[in-house]
Amino acid sequence: VSTAFSDRLIACIRRAGSPTCVGLDPVIDRLPAAVRAADPVRAIDLFCRGVIEAAAEHVAAVKFQSACFERYGGAGFSLLGDLIPFAAKRGLAVVLDAKRGDIGVSAEHYAAMAAGFGAHAITANAYLGPDTLIPYLKAGLGVFALVRTSNPDSDAVQGLPLRDGRTVAEMIADHTAALGSRYRGQAGYSDLGAVVGATKAADGRALRARMPNQFFLVPGYGAQGGTAEDIRPLLDDRPECGGGVLVTASRSVIYPAESGGGDWTRGVARAAIAFSTEVRQVIGT
Amino acid sequence: VSTAFSDRLIACIRRAGSPTCVGLDPVIDRLPAAVRAADPVRAIDLFCRGVIEAAAEHVAAVKFQSACFERYGGAGFSLLGDLIPFAAKRGLAVVLDAKRGDIGVSAEHYAAMAAGFGAHAITANAYLGPDTLIPYLKAGLGVFALVRTSNPDSDAVQGLPLRDGRTVAEMIADHTAALGSRYRGQAGYSDLGAVVGATKAADGRALRARMPNQFFLVPGYGAQGGTAEDIRPLLDDRPECGGGVLVTASRSVIYPAESGGGDWTRGVARAAIAFSTEVRQVIGT
Repeated sequence: VSTAFSDRLIACIRRAGSPTCVGLDPVIDRLPAAVRAADPVRAIDLFCRGVIEAAAEHVAAVKFQSACFERYGGAGFSLLGDLIPFAAKRGLAVVLDAKRGDIGVSAEHYAAMAAGFGAHAITANAYLGPDTLIPYLKAGLGVFALVRTSNPDSDAVQGLPLRDGRTVAEMIADHTAALGSRYRGQAGYSDLGAVVGATKAADGRALRARMPNQFFLVPGYGAQGGTAEDIRPLLDDRPECGGGVLVTASRSVIYPAESGGGDWTRGVARAAIAFSTEVRQVIGT
Repeated sequence: VSTAFSDRLIACIRRAGSPTCVGLDPVIDRLPAAVRAADPVRAIDLFCRGVIEAAAEHVAAVKFQSACFERYGGAGFSLLGDLIPFAAKRGLAVVLDAKRGDIGVSAEHYAAMAAGFGAHAITANAYLGPDTLIPYLKAGLGVFALVRTSNPDSDAVQGLPLRDGRTVAEMIADHTAALGSRYRGQAGYSDLGAVVGATKAADGRALRARMPNQFFLVPGYGAQGGTAEDIRPLLDDRPECGGGVLVTASRSVIYPAESGGGDWTRGVARAAIAFSTEVRQVIGT
C-alpha cells in the first residue's frame, strides 16, 4: 500500500465520491447555540467534532485553518493535536492550513509540528525559495504550495509579469512542478500540490498546463464567491482521480443557511451533501 | 509616550547602545548540560530564561523562532506565551518570528495570537498581497515583511526580474514602503519594517533606497555567515536610531564558542557583549 499523500487523497476522493474538502475555520461568534460553552476552546472543540462527524462520509478531506486555533494560544494549538487524529480516524485526508514558510531547520521544525499532530498535508509559502518546501516532503507530508490565491489584493504580487513573460504565480507554479516531480505517488500525482483560488479561474487553465501532475487545493468555494463553473478550467483529464483538484468550502458548509431543525449537525450534513453533489457534477463522475 | 512599535524599538536600541537582537532558536540537542531536563519543553524554558537574563542589558531585542516552540505542540506554543512577557519585562523589544501570511480574518486571528502572547512585532510574508499585512498593524503590532532572505535558494524567487525592471524583492520592498507610510511613529520610522538578510548585502543599498523609513530586521549575523561589514550598505543616515537596522544573531550568541567556565549564562553574556560591540562600531555610535 502506498504511503504517498497523493495516493491517500485519491483513496479518500473515491470513498467520498467527490474531491471535496470542508474547511474548519471556527469563529466563536458564529457557532451554533448547542456548542456554546464558557470556554471558547471547549466550544470550538465540540463544534469541530460535530462538523467532522456530520461531514465525514460525504467529503474526502478536512482542512484546519491554523489561525483560528492559534489565537487561543497553547490551548487552541493543543486542540489541533486532538482534532486532527479525530478527523483522520474517520477516513478523512487532513490538511493543516498553516501557510508556513521558513528556511532550513525551521522548516524542519514546522514539518515535525504538522506530522506530530498527525496531519497528512500542510499548506506552505514558497517565497523563501522552492527548496524550503523539501523538509515537509521529506517528513512524509503532502504540501500545497501557495501559487494563486483568491483574495483581490493577491494581484499586486502574484499577478505581476516577470521579464520572461511569466507571472509571479506562474513562476511559483513552475518551481512547484519541477520540485514536485521528485515526489510522485503510485497514481502519478505529486505529493507537492498547489493552492489555486477558485475565483481566479481565468488563470486556472494556464496553471493546470504548467502543473499537470499537481493536486490543486481550491479554496473559496461557496461563501467566498467561487462556483462549480470556476473549477472546470482547473481540471485535468482524470475524473477518476477527482480531476486533480480538492475543492474546499468552509462557511457555506460549517455555517449552513438552513439550520437542520433542532439538530445543527443535520444542517451541516445536508450542506456537505449538496456541496459534494455540485462538485461531482462538474467533475463528471 | 508613543505606543508605536518603531518608537519602542528606538528606545530599546538607545538603552542597549546598539541595534542588536538575540534570536532564540532553541534546539534540544544543543542546550547546555545545566538546563537538560526530562521534558524538552522544560529544558527550553530554562534555557530561554537564562539567555534572556544574560543578554537583556546588552541587546535591544529578542526574536523568538516560533517553529522551535511549535514543534512541541500545545505545550511548546504555550511556552511562548510565558517567555514573551518574561522578555518584555526585562526591557527588550520582542519579535515573534512566525512568518505568517494569510488573508482577511485569518490574518486577524494570527495578529490576535501574537498580541495575546504580548509580542511587540511579528514577521510576516506578503506573497498573498500587501493588504494582508494590515491586520497586524491594526492590532498595534510592528511587522517585518519578508523582503530579501539570506538563504541561497531565495534567489530563485526573490532575485528574479520583473518586466518593469525591479526584482521580486524590490517589488515587495515598494509595497512595504507604500503601505508602511500609513503607519509611522513619532521618530518618522514606520511600524512596518522589512526582513533583509545580511548575506545579500549587495542588494542592500538598493533596498534601503526604496525603504528609507523602514527598520530592517537583519538575520544571519555570525553563524550564518553575515558580518558587520555586510550591514553597512543597509544603514540609513540616523546612527542615533541604530541606522534603521535591527541586527540579529542566534547561534553565535546562544551557543557561544566559549563556555563561560562553569556558568553557561556567562558565556552567553560575553557573546552578547561582543556582538553588541561589533555592531556598535559599524553603526558608528
